[in-house]
Parts: sequence; structure tokens; C-alpha cells
Amino acid sequence: MVKLVVTYGAPDDPPAFDQHYASTHVPLVEKIPNLRRFEAGKVLGTPDGSPAPFYFMAELWFDSAQDLEAAMGSAEGQAAGADVGNFATGGATLMIAEA
Amino acid sequence: MVKLVVTYGAPDDPPAFDQHYASTHVPLVEKIPNLRRFEAGKVLGTPDGSPAPFYFMAELWFDSAQDLEAAMGSAEGQAAGADVGNFATGGATLMIAEA
Repeated sequence: MVKLVVTYGAPDDPPAFDQHYASTHVPLVEKIPNLRRFEAGKVLGTPDGSPAPFYFMAELWFDSAQDLEAAMGSAEGQAAGADVGNFATGGATLMIAEA
Repeated sequence: MVKLVVTYGAPDDPPAFDQHYASTHVPLVEKIPNLRRFEAGKVLGTPDGSPAPFYFMAELWFDSAQDLEAAMGSAEGQAAGADVGNFATGGATLMIAEA
């Protein structure tokens, strides 16, 4: 499997981020085709107490890189991706990893 | 649940990293008490083709923050943590996130 990992920097308005993420973004992600597993949540801290590098993290698992690519190119994937600009005021970094 | 997320920067000697990770580090991680799920793999790239921010990524899931803390404080957790210095020549960043 492979996963798309999205890390979000600290937003300008955390409650607004949280509200948009839960009520608008999650439903868009859940419509993405080929999605096998979805996990998202706040970064709580670091083991040594140093500042956490991100505010929030999401992961989307797919059976293969081909499935991930097709998902991101789909209308649903494009809609979810476009929505990121609506709430990720602290930026979003995406990477693809083996899973 | 919560997860410990470990991101590794590009090592000086990738084959040596891979070999040590698979043959030594994975067995140490698998001995950590309370561990519910473990996933580790290479960062393959980014959706837009920009350079990947990390070389490798691992995640360890636990039922609760208390379980994670106990696991990291255990002899097995300490042994796995100490081993990171033996292969993570590109550095390792740890964070704890909701899962």
C-alpha cells in the first residue's frame, strides 16, 4: 500500500480550521475513489517537549501508487485538494510514502 | 488512539540505513509494549514532483497517550529509541498525533 501524508502548519484561526476540516473537508475526502483508510488528527506534541512541527496531520491510504494517482486526478480528489486552500492558512505539505 | 510519528532525513548511506532498519530496528520496535500497529516505509515523493522532505517515515500506534508514554519509558522503548542514533545519519524528528 501507499499513503498520502498531509501535514498542516499552525493556522491563523485554529477553531475555524477545526470546524472547516470536520464539517467540509472530511466529507470531501471520504468521497475520494480507491481510498482504503483515512486518519486525521491534531499533533499533540513531541516526546521531548519541544514545539510540535505541525498543527494537524492526515493520511490517506491506497492499495497502490496507481490508485493514489487516479484518486488525486479524479473529480473528487481535485475537489478535496482545492478545498485545502479554504482552511490551511498555515500551509500544507504533501508527501507519498510506502505503507 | 494516538501515534508516534518518526520522520527521517536523507541518510549518508541509504543502503546501510535500509539494512540496519530492517534487520535491527524493526525487531526492537516490535518488542515495545502496548504497541498496537506499526508501519514504516520510504517516502516515495510528492504529488507535485517537488523534492520529498524526508527519506523514511515510521508510525507507532497506541491505545492512549498514557500507553505511548509508558511504552517509551519501558526498557524496550528506550532500546529502540537509543538505536535510532545508530542509523539515522540524516536526523530523526518525532511527534505525537491523534489517530
